[in-house]
Amino acid sequence: MSDDAVVRPRPEAVVTLRPASGARIEGGFWGARQRVNRDVTIPLGARRIRESGAFANLEAAARGAGGEHRGKVFADSDVYKWLEALAWERGRADSDGLARAYEEAAGLVAAAQAPDGYLHTHTQLTGRERYSDLASSHELYCAGHLMQAAVAGSRALGDDTLLRVAAKFADHLVKDLPADALDGHPEIETALAELYRETGVRPYLDLAARMVTGRGHERLPLKGHHGPGIRQDRVPLRDATTVEGHAVRALYLAAGATDVAAETGDGDLLAALTRQWRDMVATKTYLTGGLGSVWYGEQFGGPHELTPETAYCETCAAVASVQWSWRMLLATGEPGYADLMERTLYNAVLPGLSLGGDRFFYVNALRVRAGANPDDRRAAARGRQDWYGTACCPPNVMRLLSSLGHYLATRSEDGVQLHLYASGTVRAGDVLLEVRTGYPWDGRVEIVVRETPERPWTFSARIPSWADGASVNAEPAEPGYHRIRRAWRPGDRVTLDLAVRPRLTAAVPRLDVARGQVAVERGPLVYCLEQPDHPGVIVDDLCLAATPGLRDGAPIAGLPAEVVPMIARGRIHAHRDEDAGFPYRTAAAPREPEHTGPVDLTFVPYYAWANRGAGPMTIWTPMH
Amino acid sequence: MSDDAVVRPRPEAVVTLRPASGARIEGGFWGARQRVNRDVTIPLGARRIRESGAFANLEAAARGAGGEHRGKVFADSDVYKWLEALAWERGRADSDGLARAYEEAAGLVAAAQAPDGYLHTHTQLTGRERYSDLASSHELYCAGHLMQAAVAGSRALGDDTLLRVAAKFADHLVKDLPADALDGHPEIETALAELYRETGVRPYLDLAARMVTGRGHERLPLKGHHGPGIRQDRVPLRDATTVEGHAVRALYLAAGATDVAAETGDGDLLAALTRQWRDMVATKTYLTGGLGSVWYGEQFGGPHELTPETAYCETCAAVASVQWSWRMLLATGEPGYADLMERTLYNAVLPGLSLGGDRFFYVNALRVRAGANPDDRRAAARGRQDWYGTACCPPNVMRLLSSLGHYLATRSEDGVQLHLYASGTVRAGDVLLEVRTGYPWDGRVEIVVRETPERPWTFSARIPSWADGASVNAEPAEPGYHRIRRAWRPGDRVTLDLAVRPRLTAAVPRLDVARGQVAVERGPLVYCLEQPDHPGVIVDDLCLAATPGLRDGAPIAGLPAEVVPMIARGRIHAHRDEDAGFPYRTAAAPREPEHTGPVDLTFVPYYAWANRGAGPMTIWTPMH
Repeated sequence: MSDDAVVRPRPEAVVTLRPASGARIEGGFWGARQRVNRDVTIPLGARRIRESGAFANLEAAARGAGGEHRGKVFADSDVYKWLEALAWERGRADSDGLARAYEEAAGLVAAAQAPDGYLHTHTQLTGRERYSDLASSHELYCAGHLMQAAVAGSRALGDDTLLRVAAKFADHLVKDLPADALDGHPEIETALAELYRETGVRPYLDLAARMVTGRGHERLPLKGHHGPGIRQDRVPLRDATTVEGHAVRALYLAAGATDVAAETGDGDLLAALTRQWRDMVATKTYLTGGLGSVWYGEQFGGPHELTPETAYCETCAAVASVQWSWRMLLATGEPGYADLMERTLYNAVLPGLSLGGDRFFYVNALRVRAGANPDDRRAAARGRQDWYGTACCPPNVMRLLSSLGHYLATRSEDGVQLHLYASGTVRAGDVLLEVRTGYPWDGRVEIVVRETPERPWTFSARIPSWADGASVNAEPAEPGYHRIRRAWRPGDRVTLDLAVRPRLTAAVPRLDVARGQVAVERGPLVYCLEQPDHPGVIVDDLCLAATPGLRDGAPIAGLPAEVVPMIARGRIHAHRDEDAGFPYRTAAAPREPEHTGPVDLTFVPYYAWANRGAGPMTIWTPMH
Repeated sequence: MSDDAVVRPRPEAVVTLRPASGARIEGGFWGARQRVNRDVTIPLGARRIRESGAFANLEAAARGAGGEHRGKVFADSDVYKWLEALAWERGRADSDGLARAYEEAAGLVAAAQAPDGYLHTHTQLTGRERYSDLASSHELYCAGHLMQAAVAGSRALGDDTLLRVAAKFADHLVKDLPADALDGHPEIETALAELYRETGVRPYLDLAARMVTGRGHERLPLKGHHGPGIRQDRVPLRDATTVEGHAVRALYLAAGATDVAAETGDGDLLAALTRQWRDMVATKTYLTGGLGSVWYGEQFGGPHELTPETAYCETCAAVASVQWSWRMLLATGEPGYADLMERTLYNAVLPGLSLGGDRFFYVNALRVRAGANPDDRRAAARGRQDWYGTACCPPNVMRLLSSLGHYLATRSEDGVQLHLYASGTVRAGDVLLEVRTGYPWDGRVEIVVRETPERPWTFSARIPSWADGASVNAEPAEPGYHRIRRAWRPGDRVTLDLAVRPRLTAAVPRLDVARGQVAVERGPLVYCLEQPDHPGVIVDDLCLAATPGLRDGAPIAGLPAEVVPMIARGRIHAHRDEDAGFPYRTAAAPREPEHTGPVDLTFVPYYAWANRGAGPMTIWTPMH
């Protein structure tokens, strides 16, 4: 287990926590997801990316001639993200097949690079002037994903094929990129910071810092009906009080800015990012952790604009959110960042991938109604798709799943911190921990100390914010980090009970779209009502009884046996004849629906929805 | 008062009602709106359209040379709609100024026409091949608006300048338009039908019918991420069960199809349109009558997808809805069509225009929150605008206001029907009625028979669906048409009391976005809470008390003295400290907000909002 952290601050960086030296997920919930990712999703990605023409673009660029470019201007980035996933995957457990695929693609990338270091096949093949349309060309966005793949290859494999390509490109950028150049789509900022961390070449960090600082002065040309905020170019990040504009762009930029703040010790910038993160969580985050409520521009909406059915919640935004929160967690050590990461991983990243690993959601609605127009391309009712013309999300999930182990734990002068729970091992310096758990189905987590120095150190475990009644070694534990400082011996155990039980969740009054409704959760999982479990009635008409008696149910045919559904007492809204016409009536008070019933409602984890066909679904359920 | 109906079925058309020969609004609510339209909006439109380059395009086309085209491909239609408004306005009361403006512009249009009858300045100036990109070019859309202006000029003024241009263009289309040609934006269908009605040239109707029938077979190329439904090309209109896609396009098409059904006696088509209208009203119509809930594609959403804050409700869609419902009313005589027209006129068309007549809303939100991002170009929080780059809405309101009198009344073999109430006179054959009313502020409407034949006939007056407790001549009257058949004498009176009183309105259970909330209405007007009336607290936090004691208030500074505000007892949601963080909490039931209070809430008519600055506003208010 090498020191292959996915984010690795320099020794001089101002951070509270540093990544564990290594962590490996073995079995359990996430182990199964990693296996599907390795066996199905990554190989499928290779085929789909080949079909999209992205490899052909690199081959054409390698031949040095111009010619047709296939797919989107950012097609290269699909290859890079998939390569990053391959690198992390090989770091977990190499195979001849993985090695061959990686080496072939990495070699192709190297061959496609221009002699001076530049690499962007769309620009190279079409002959467009470099950097002449940075607002839309995604040249630096692609460069960023190349750098991230290169860092992964170097850290996970000790392979420098891509690192040399990335460094040569970065050197070119440091030397030749026009001053004040900004890419319309942030991404390179965090990548340059990480490339600096991997290589020690300070100008990479300086360039990242310049791009972070240069944003927010309305330098980028406007696009469509959008203002400068869509590309985070309205307000300097240092002055901003909230996140705005295109969600993925905003989150990648915030991640990069957090890297820059850590490496430069810029406390003002970190304070600004803290403010923005808090406002995002308080006013712009769906219950699932999903981000971005507006289809038009794939962007953040206004505060509390969190309509379930029109949620955008791009899978990439969830990945980017995990990346940002992880960096904030390293910087500050505050548990809220890990709370959001966990919520997001289970309920906003994972729904982007089918249980079989071969179908995808780009957009993640929190409600689908009966009667959704099949022609409405927004409609989640159309179900998961095989792939996308803009295929940013699938390889983003691949690389996150492959590297997930790196997000479980951190270390500090003081000791070791466990943030996320999965069966496996965690190495932090001279400490080695073994983790055994049936989480998230079961709240019990057993940690066994396998190696330890003789000096005392502090073991910290995050008690999730929802874990009312949690305990550590049978003693009550409050949400936040539960710390145990002592001298440890090999074989010592810590037993957590994270109080994984069914619960109902409601929203604050300003969140009007959830008014009169509750959500069902169990541990870190958000649940939903889905049509296949309710034949003969439509989900739109179901409501919870006032005393719902929420309880675990038996396994459901068509879902993996491990999935624990939840059952509750409910009712069915009756339709009065008058409801068939204009849907508004004079009434002395809000309408209380008449209902029939009782019926049993079945809730399934949201991440598992749309695996038994597409159809109505809701996370929020009325209750009365 | 000539027989200048805005829609005039041929004698052989299969319709239940026919337009009154003429109607004139004199004073009162709508008289004031017509005066502002004449004195402010129409002259302002001339300046703005000139500034946009639309006149310059016609001038350049008239010179016969190619050259730069300014503005959008549909810029010509702004001129045509404004000309249509001018024609109706001159029909109401001509002036030298209006006559000069009309003649100059009409002459320019005539001069711009190509020798063979074709006219579309964008195509003429850029040299693009005619009809080569009908999905996007708006060539026939513009032709349709030209035809409507021409019909208005002929009917209102007896002027055939534009009618000759339109007929020549239509002749050209009948002869030379490629078979199966469809415009991406319907409009020409209803225009061709009306041009047929005005000229008797049957091939115009046949072409309209062909276009109505030809739609729905996926012939138009796809656009962006949209399916064929965005342009009503997924399902033949005859088979469709609901409206779908771009709202304005769907509604113009439906209006044209209704014209075709009436003129050809196509009962199946009318039945299909009836089904679609009913589904639209039951599942896709905002309380205001506004239509189109989706920004992306300016389109209808799914059933009950009627989120207040992201309502699109394009002002043009409201105008188009009035046009369609009027045609359905003529075809069927059913009161629901007039109910929707009235609701739409007051609450979806009128909000598109400022009280001063010089500022506009293209999109009409039903809720604006505090803290809306000023960079969010969707935000109604930005307030009304001076004009729009796509300026379809302002001249659409102009032409509807100028011709509004034509929508008040109809006649049949049996008698005369009053559908909408405004002070003025109605001529229907040998019947002349005088109407006096303070409506919508006051529910009393007095109708005086000024001229009548000796034979008995039936007077019908629509009792609005909300008018609980209405009376006619002091006798209780139910919603729908109240009919009085007898022999009438000059001087006879009918007195309606339409029970204009404050009331609360709630939504059916499936309309979840209004859950736990009510709206305030008074007569035909929908009211809203607006920020200027609630200093020191934000509208987002206001709620109605369970016994609100809704009552009329005193006039409000900054609004016209006639506007009756409504006052109710309310409370202010208290913010608990915990509400500052992640906005979801474990709770046994939906969260009942704590509140302080009582406070007085002030509701103003929705059409009058955003005339005292922009800011938070809501039509739906929580109540508990």
